[in-house]
Amino acid sequence: MKTPFPFSAIVGQSDMKQAMILTAIDPGIGGVLVFGDRGTGKSTAVRALAALLPPITAIKDCPINAETADECPEWSQNSTTETHSRPTPVVDLPLGASEDRVVGALDIERALTRGEKAFEPGLLARANRGYLYIDEVNLLEDHIVDLLLDVAQSGENVVEREGLSIRHPARFVLVGSGNPEEGELRPQLLDRFGLSVEVRSPQDVKERVEVIKRRDAFERDTDAFLKTYIKQDAKIRKAIVKAKALLPTVTQEDDILNDCAALCIALGSDGLRGELTLLRSARALAAYKGHDTITRDHLRTVAPIALPHRLRRDPLDDAGSATRVVRTLDTVLA
Amino acid sequence: MKTPFPFSAIVGQSDMKQAMILTAIDPGIGGVLVFGDRGTGKSTAVRALAALLPPITAIKDCPINAETADECPEWSQNSTTETHSRPTPVVDLPLGASEDRVVGALDIERALTRGEKAFEPGLLARANRGYLYIDEVNLLEDHIVDLLLDVAQSGENVVEREGLSIRHPARFVLVGSGNPEEGELRPQLLDRFGLSVEVRSPQDVKERVEVIKRRDAFERDTDAFLKTYIKQDAKIRKAIVKAKALLPTVTQEDDILNDCAALCIALGSDGLRGELTLLRSARALAAYKGHDTITRDHLRTVAPIALPHRLRRDPLDDAGSATRVVRTLDTVLA
Amino acid sequence: MKTPFPFSAIVGQSDMKQAMILTAIDPGIGGVLVFGDRGTGKSTAVRALAALLPPITAIKDCPINAETADECPEWSQNSTTETHSRPTPVVDLPLGASEDRVVGALDIERALTRGEKAFEPGLLARANRGYLYIDEVNLLEDHIVDLLLDVAQSGENVVEREGLSIRHPARFVLVGSGNPEEGELRPQLLDRFGLSVEVRSPQDVKERVEVIKRRDAFERDTDAFLKTYIKQDAKIRKAIVKAKALLPTVTQEDDILNDCAALCIALGSDGLRGELTLLRSARALAAYKGHDTITRDHLRTVAPIALPHRLRRDPLDDAGSATRVVRTLDTVLA
Amino acid sequence: MKTPFPFSAIVGQSDMKQAMILTAIDPGIGGVLVFGDRGTGKSTAVRALAALLPPITAIKDCPINAETADECPEWSQNSTTETHSRPTPVVDLPLGASEDRVVGALDIERALTRGEKAFEPGLLARANRGYLYIDEVNLLEDHIVDLLLDVAQSGENVVEREGLSIRHPARFVLVGSGNPEEGELRPQLLDRFGLSVEVRSPQDVKERVEVIKRRDAFERDTDAFLKTYIKQDAKIRKAIVKAKALLPTVTQEDDILNDCAALCIALGSDGLRGELTLLRSARALAAYKGHDTITRDHLRTVAPIALPHRLRRDPLDDAGSATRVVRTLDTVLA
Amino acid sequence: MKTPFPFSAIVGQSDMKQAMILTAIDPGIGGVLVFGDRGTGKSTAVRALAALLPPITAIKDCPINAETADECPEWSQNSTTETHSRPTPVVDLPLGASEDRVVGALDIERALTRGEKAFEPGLLARANRGYLYIDEVNLLEDHIVDLLLDVAQSGENVVEREGLSIRHPARFVLVGSGNPEEGELRPQLLDRFGLSVEVRSPQDVKERVEVIKRRDAFERDTDAFLKTYIKQDAKIRKAIVKAKALLPTVTQEDDILNDCAALCIALGSDGLRGELTLLRSARALAAYKGHDTITRDHLRTVAPIALPHRLRRDPLDDAGSATRVVRTLDTVLA
Amino acid sequence: MKTPFPFSAIVGQSDMKQAMILTAIDPGIGGVLVFGDRGTGKSTAVRALAALLPPITAIKDCPINAETADECPEWSQNSTTETHSRPTPVVDLPLGASEDRVVGALDIERALTRGEKAFEPGLLARANRGYLYIDEVNLLEDHIVDLLLDVAQSGENVVEREGLSIRHPARFVLVGSGNPEEGELRPQLLDRFGLSVEVRSPQDVKERVEVIKRRDAFERDTDAFLKTYIKQDAKIRKAIVKAKALLPTVTQEDDILNDCAALCIALGSDGLRGELTLLRSARALAAYKGHDTITRDHLRTVAPIALPHRLRRDPLDDAGSATRVVRTLDTVLA
Repeated sequence: MKTPFPFSAIVGQSDMKQAMILTAIDPGIGGVLVFGDRGTGKSTAVRALAALLPPITAIKDCPINAETADECPEWSQNSTTETHSRPTPVVDLPLGASEDRVVGALDIERALTRGEKAFEPGLLARANRGYLYIDEVNLLEDHIVDLLLDVAQSGENVVEREGLSIRHPARFVLVGSGNPEEGELRPQLLDRFGLSVEVRSPQDVKERVEVIKRRDAFERDTDAFLKTYIKQDAKIRKAIVKAKALLPTVTQEDDILNDCAALCIALGSDGLRGELTLLRSARALAAYKGHDTITRDHLRTVAPIALPHRLRRDPLDDAGSATRVVRTLDTVLA
Repeated sequence: MKTPFPFSAIVGQSDMKQAMILTAIDPGIGGVLVFGDRGTGKSTAVRALAALLPPITAIKDCPINAETADECPEWSQNSTTETHSRPTPVVDLPLGASEDRVVGALDIERALTRGEKAFEPGLLARANRGYLYIDEVNLLEDHIVDLLLDVAQSGENVVEREGLSIRHPARFVLVGSGNPEEGELRPQLLDRFGLSVEVRSPQDVKERVEVIKRRDAFERDTDAFLKTYIKQDAKIRKAIVKAKALLPTVTQEDDILNDCAALCIALGSDGLRGELTLLRSARALAAYKGHDTITRDHLRTVAPIALPHRLRRDPLDDAGSATRVVRTLDTVLA
Repeated sequence: MKTPFPFSAIVGQSDMKQAMILTAIDPGIGGVLVFGDRGTGKSTAVRALAALLPPITAIKDCPINAETADECPEWSQNSTTETHSRPTPVVDLPLGASEDRVVGALDIERALTRGEKAFEPGLLARANRGYLYIDEVNLLEDHIVDLLLDVAQSGENVVEREGLSIRHPARFVLVGSGNPEEGELRPQLLDRFGLSVEVRSPQDVKERVEVIKRRDAFERDTDAFLKTYIKQDAKIRKAIVKAKALLPTVTQEDDILNDCAALCIALGSDGLRGELTLLRSARALAAYKGHDTITRDHLRTVAPIALPHRLRRDPLDDAGSATRVVRTLDTVLA
Repeated sequence: MKTPFPFSAIVGQSDMKQAMILTAIDPGIGGVLVFGDRGTGKSTAVRALAALLPPITAIKDCPINAETADECPEWSQNSTTETHSRPTPVVDLPLGASEDRVVGALDIERALTRGEKAFEPGLLARANRGYLYIDEVNLLEDHIVDLLLDVAQSGENVVEREGLSIRHPARFVLVGSGNPEEGELRPQLLDRFGLSVEVRSPQDVKERVEVIKRRDAFERDTDAFLKTYIKQDAKIRKAIVKAKALLPTVTQEDDILNDCAALCIALGSDGLRGELTLLRSARALAAYKGHDTITRDHLRTVAPIALPHRLRRDPLDDAGSATRVVRTLDTVLA
Repeated sequence: MKTPFPFSAIVGQSDMKQAMILTAIDPGIGGVLVFGDRGTGKSTAVRALAALLPPITAIKDCPINAETADECPEWSQNSTTETHSRPTPVVDLPLGASEDRVVGALDIERALTRGEKAFEPGLLARANRGYLYIDEVNLLEDHIVDLLLDVAQSGENVVEREGLSIRHPARFVLVGSGNPEEGELRPQLLDRFGLSVEVRSPQDVKERVEVIKRRDAFERDTDAFLKTYIKQDAKIRKAIVKAKALLPTVTQEDDILNDCAALCIALGSDGLRGELTLLRSARALAAYKGHDTITRDHLRTVAPIALPHRLRRDPLDDAGSATRVVRTLDTVLA
Repeated sequence: MKTPFPFSAIVGQSDMKQAMILTAIDPGIGGVLVFGDRGTGKSTAVRALAALLPPITAIKDCPINAETADECPEWSQNSTTETHSRPTPVVDLPLGASEDRVVGALDIERALTRGEKAFEPGLLARANRGYLYIDEVNLLEDHIVDLLLDVAQSGENVVEREGLSIRHPARFVLVGSGNPEEGELRPQLLDRFGLSVEVRSPQDVKERVEVIKRRDAFERDTDAFLKTYIKQDAKIRKAIVKAKALLPTVTQEDDILNDCAALCIALGSDGLRGELTLLRSARALAAYKGHDTITRDHLRTVAPIALPHRLRRDPLDDAGSATRVVRTLDTVLA
């Protein structure tokens, strides 16, 4: 109901904006984790994303926003093949949403009135082909985060309870904001997010005044403020659409793969999700810039958001994860 | 049922009274947190506020007190466009209220008798356009406080449970009273309240006797006592109404924004909620005083209630938060 | 069912008897907390109170014992204006009573048979205009004690659950007995009781033999025993009725208020509930003694039951709270 | 179903047998607590009691075994005035009995089939006028033990839940067996039992062989064994009936009361339940012996089962409670 | 469904086999506790017992396997007097069985469809006259183990819940297997088992190879393997039937009783269950061997399985319980 | 829905692939536990297995995939004898599956609409004759893992709850993946898995690049990628089918049994599951290689996956379990 703040009116926060644009180009990159102190505009930014994303074409009334009538699940009893253009879904996981509403559940109304065992889809269905946003992801119980990451990665929601046995596509990008002071996520969960960014309050008076001015202007006269930024937002949106089309044609030399592996071995990141994310986000960046091949520059740009949350803590090295990534980039890609 | 004590008959407690008047002028300032020992009249004061606030115009029987028929939510099945003038809602969160009653829930009666899945609004709906008061906010479970702050800030209540998927406006000012001895609020929650004030028992015999006299008089002959203060209460009410009208026209120099940012940087408050609250409460104060521009004096007056709950504890500085705010004001605005 | 022991047959225990008489004269004094070892007759005394209290006039069948038909709550569907004289209600909170039965709940029978959502009043309704007795108050969960004190103080019961939104008067005096060895009450709860008394087993053989004799006589031939004390009980009852009538006319000099404040400041009791309770119980005592003005003697008599539970523990002072009150009385009222 | 072992065939265990006989004569003495190692025949003895107790006269089908039709509770819908002679009820609290079945609950069958809210009495109703036996009382949750002791002492069961508001007589003797190694009872609970006895395995080969012989004989040919002891059991039963008739006429000198008080003061037992129990059990013993006045000898006999569980632990005195009682008897009654 | 391994094909494990045979001859000996490391064939052995036990004669369809129609419980609505010969029941308590299914519960189907409150018997009913096997008894919650031992000992199942008040015979031998590493049983529970045996993996290559050979042969060609052992199993079964018939006629000299008592006193076992079990199992052994009187040799054979779990731990004696039993046998029966 | 990665396209991970092939040849070997860091492709590999396994012949619509109509359980109300060839079932235990859905439960729909108590089979039924895969088995509660292992071993699912008493075959291989950092399994559970393998990220750039290339190729053009590996997968599938046919004819010398026992005694593995698993997996390997007799080479190959999880930790030996197995192989089979 509250109008979102325009994406392009956000002062600074370039990492976060970059991460969101890349996952809009290639949702396969995986979720984004936004860390930061309280009051740094984390949730403002994510809600701004909603107004920016390009629309999708979907079957009308289909609970999973399917592109064609064939893809609508059987249990939806869909009867139309008519499509419409609709905003990319951005679903908000409200605090206190029950597990039932997240994964879907028995439709109580139909069970009571008609004695039928029907499935009522949850937020995971509604988020299909879009974004699922969780504010303060570290306040969620681990088993729910586990479940969300599992679905985000497999792309399908499997429901086995209350006598239901349902599976439906649930391809979405998970965006979680969190405050590291309020309890950390387990390393196993961290690793399953594609990108991670950190946002901080600016420490410069001028930048802070600019932020206050824009927020105050936005709150005092929302409509006038929106008009000022409508063009800038549209420009980003078009660039994303163009990059999506270019993406499948972007190629890379084997040297780039060697670079990815060498970087991850040097950083000691567990498993192979590091390399794969690095490669995919570099490719999305290349497409966004209109390039048809991945270069070391692309790797340099995306490594600081694709790798820091996969490092093991090094007790002998005081530097933060991001610093260690940059230092290793300098050595390995020298 | 019990008649509230008149607002203007409260002895001392100027900070608390100030904070309440400012949020009545601009509810966007956010909630008020009232700290204090037991028996200092915290809940008396908040209940006094009810009698003071100016009335609002609302559609009759609309569960969210909408101003126009268009704004009544669909699920309310509202059928009238008739409005009436009614007291500003002040909703009390009783100890033991279930989460269902707070956010709203499935209407069991209609479900049982008519097999319909209808929404029964909760306290958050009723508090729309008014105040929601929680006595002993530190006794509430964290997830409920989280939920209340979330709704207070976003201005809408999102319900996703029991097969319901409802959202309705819930714009209200949260007023919480708390006793720091009974368990602290997490810093993340503190920061989301707009203003904070502290109330103490007077240590002066004369002032104490005055308090006892008034409370005793009020309890022995309530009607006679109320008559004594009816005019003073009306005067404050009128001043609030006038300030609300003036508010949109109040302006400020850029220097004032610089002052806000410089103050918050000097105090090391996290995020940018500090500056924004400082600005808005200074503006409300200017309006209350009939001024058309914000001055440093306004900042000086509101900073001690807008900032202290946002400071990190400084282990090398014994002074309390309020003292540190005053000291910094002296330096930065020197 | 078991006949209560006569109030006037209780050997010793003058503080406790005093406290009960004062709250019978002015219920506004607040609840009474009775501390003591096991087997000291705490619950015997409270049950004895039932037979002593003067009757009230109430509408027949009204669930809240309303004095006039207008005051019967809407949900009671009361249809008579006929009144009767009935004993002052003394409601016993049995161990294991559910929260539902305490505050009231949805009437399951009507919901099941008629599909109506009706309110079934609980013990708080039944206790209106009387006493609510809790044996071993320290064994109750804190949130229930909180709730009871909240209702006792505000005088109304607010129910927000199971789709019900009900409020009804619940003016009663809470009497709690407790054994400090079984777990203490939080200071915040202590402060909300009006008076506190301590009962001990007599350490004198003669007094003990007298107690045994009376209890044995009572149990071997109850009727004969009751006859012996019927007149003494009636005398106390009449004195209470007379004092209630006199109460509104009792006045005090400003010096008495100064004394109250000076005493509480000297004792360091938090908040202002100390002074107010001191004043009200002194006034009730004056009325009981047939005096029309409060004197320092009245203060001296009631301070040891009105103040000790409001003191902070002083680690440098070995004396118990009661001793500290008496010592301070000697100094301040010297 | 299993035939109980005859009471008079129990080898040794005189304290336990004494305690049971005394409470059969005067149930007002209160419950019996039987302590002992595993395998000492505690539950065998209690079940033996069932066969020994004299029968009672009760209204047929009355759920509380009322003596006259007037006493049958309203909710029992009793329609007969016919009485029959029936065994004294001995109700066994089975492990895993729900609180519902103990205190009684809503009659689900009638609620479902007839939509009526009827009361279905529990074990407390069935135990009225008899015994309630709890094996391993220290394994029960404290709140259930509390509830049982509360009902045992007040003699009535108050049910306030599921929309029911019922009270009915529940006068019974509570017999609890316990193993001190498996967790102690709180002192507050101990004190509310009338008598306590300790049972131990005999350490003498001859006595042990006698026990084994009788148990083996009982199990190999139950009927033959029962015949051997039927007369001895009948003799005890008759003596109990005679003593019950004599009881109201037994008197005592004031010196005896002084002795009771002096003993309890010397032993430092809290409260006055010690004296009262001592007096009542001495009186029951006098009646059992056919005496019409209580003597010091009676006190000497019953003190070791009436007092030991009421002493505070004395860290400077290694002797057990029973030893301390005997030592004090020697001094005080010297 | 899986065919059990033949009892006589078990390599070694003579104590366990002995214990099972003795309880088959006299179920009154009580339950058997089988201790051992994982993978030692504990559950294999118990399941083997099923195929070995002699059949019983029972009323067809009777839920408690009653021998005559009169013994079928009323609630079973049994309508036939026809009997059949059926295998001795061996009921398996599956992991995750609810308490409802163990003791029996309200028959939901009849309650829903016919509005009747009927009893649906549980596993305890089905185990009547047979064996109840619990794998990993130390993983069960204590209150369930308590309940099972209680029923096993009293021979009847008392159900007091959901408005049901049922009792039915439940005479069975409890067999529990446990791994002492996974949490011990409380001494009180240990003592209530009749016999205890320990099983270990053989440490001899030859014996181990024999075990592997038999298990591998059994799994590769079950039918062929079973044929090899069918006669040996039948021989044991016949010996059990013969011993059951002989049992009532077996007698003993008083010296044997003295020996039992002397042994238990020397070992310091609590209570008298030690002697009684020793006597009964010696008698069953005598019957199995075709002797008509109990000798010291019988005592020597059964003491190591009847006593070790009843000893208190002796901190000054490093030897295991079994060793201490053997050592004491040598001294006492020297 | 997501196409699985081809089994033969997995780079390295030979132990894991070996283990899966062996259990496909002889499911009696028991479950497989896959340990490894995050991101090492554990779940990818298990899902790849699905596409590889040979099809089975089963009755159409039979809930337990029975081979003949006679084997369909009674409660399935199966009415056809028609069979079809279907993929080997690979059932995925989704995070958050309720115990009901795992073991089966009352069919709510039929209970509500037809008042019948019917069984609705769970995942254990569906997994019959196939595989049950649990990702992150160490996050499951112990009692569920216990239950799954119990069923996996006994080959049947016993349901005793909600008034149901059902048993049906549930023969499947349990495959669990786990991360030892997230909490260990109890030794008792470890021992009940047949084989265990460990997977690690390759530390060699070339191998890592190969992994990235394949995963990237698979994700960018799945169909093209699958075609490349279809023949290699078919080859493995045929070898498995051939080995299954050969298996019953594979024999061994007694020396091989001696080797198994000697190895397990030398390693100190508890119980006899070690030897049996070693023998069965060596036999399956022999069959896979087309040999008709087991040799020491086969033992050497399978011991490192059949034994390491059965060793007790040796505090004096730093080497991992696998190293200790290899070292012992060298000594014992020298």
